[in-house]
Amino acid sequence: MATSTKARGGYATGTARRRQILDAAMIRFGQDGYRKTSLARVARDAGITDAGLLHHFRDKQALLLAVIEHWHTSLDENWLPLGASVREAFRAHLEQAAQTQAMPGIIELAVVVGAEATSLDHPAHSLFRKWQEKGVAELAQRLAAGETAGELRPGPDWHSVARELVAVEEGLRLQWLTGDRAFDLVDMVRAHLDRLIRSISANGEGLE
Amino acid sequence: MATSTKARGGYATGTARRRQILDAAMIRFGQDGYRKTSLARVARDAGITDAGLLHHFRDKQALLLAVIEHWHTSLDENWLPLGASVREAFRAHLEQAAQTQAMPGIIELAVVVGAEATSLDHPAHSLFRKWQEKGVAELAQRLAAGETAGELRPGPDWHSVARELVAVEEGLRLQWLTGDRAFDLVDMVRAHLDRLIRSISANGEGLE
Repeated sequence: MATSTKARGGYATGTARRRQILDAAMIRFGQDGYRKTSLARVARDAGITDAGLLHHFRDKQALLLAVIEHWHTSLDENWLPLGASVREAFRAHLEQAAQTQAMPGIIELAVVVGAEATSLDHPAHSLFRKWQEKGVAELAQRLAAGETAGELRPGPDWHSVARELVAVEEGLRLQWLTGDRAFDLVDMVRAHLDRLIRSISANGEGLE
Repeated sequence: MATSTKARGGYATGTARRRQILDAAMIRFGQDGYRKTSLARVARDAGITDAGLLHHFRDKQALLLAVIEHWHTSLDENWLPLGASVREAFRAHLEQAAQTQAMPGIIELAVVVGAEATSLDHPAHSLFRKWQEKGVAELAQRLAAGETAGELRPGPDWHSVARELVAVEEGLRLQWLTGDRAFDLVDMVRAHLDRLIRSISANGEGLE
């Protein structure tokens, strides 16, 4: 019994430690970019030794891939519980955007590492590409299903609407960081989603 | 006469050489990002000596700022000859997007250095911020003038429409690079502009 409790305790500590490293790495990669960040720096940020970090992640690339998967998984989970209504999905997405904005480092990570990862030789290139194209395809499918269900009007090229949705989100983040966070990011996402749903919905109504 | 011809020749050579360095730097910064690129590498790309490059640009930062201004100026010039019609401006913008796509390095530069420059301590941060906010403000003004002229319908928040336009352009570029250029970038820009002009124009018509 005591052993098993201790083992569970060790496991829980390991998981917490791993999480602590991922959080520190997310912020640091977000601030400085992947290429400029050293493992030693992340270890220092996380308050552990270099050896302690290497116990969880064998090198910087493994750490980056874990950070991105951790982040993508939490984004994907946000879409899972949604029903078929596109308007509902837009509203939920907006809530998620508000939550993301409150997390330090995540927008910087998305923008800075996302741009770095456009290089074919970047270790996260293929991860970003696959996740993006999967996201666009799923979004397009969801929109097409909205047309079939009669919620959206027939006509628009749903694939290009899906690309627009992804582009506005990423483009606004870049703009927000470049503009020293001087406008309300969530308001701008809301204004776009509202205009878009008015123009593609069968009843011509907005988000609210 | 001979001297003046020679002087003009020397000046013309200097201008051509400067242009040659700017073009090489644009491609190299676009491929590798600003931080990773050395002046020696740009000199090699441009086929001149390090000293030759330093004769034109005193350091890497001066070169980067010149590259960005060179590029921004050519973009701004594209908007200048336009009349007051928003639909016309959208069409001209689309032609410009097609031209940009054909220039090697420029989209990589926009995406990679643009993302790097979100850092407050990046030498081009303030240049990017000012250019972005000036562009958004001018675009919003142009849209508001379109409403006054009766071309656009009353109601939309033109400032947020302007941010959407800039976001889609930048977001689609990032998406195009991340997705290994597997979709037609100009088609996607056109589809967005067409949807947008339908939803904001007084007559509900598209681009064509």
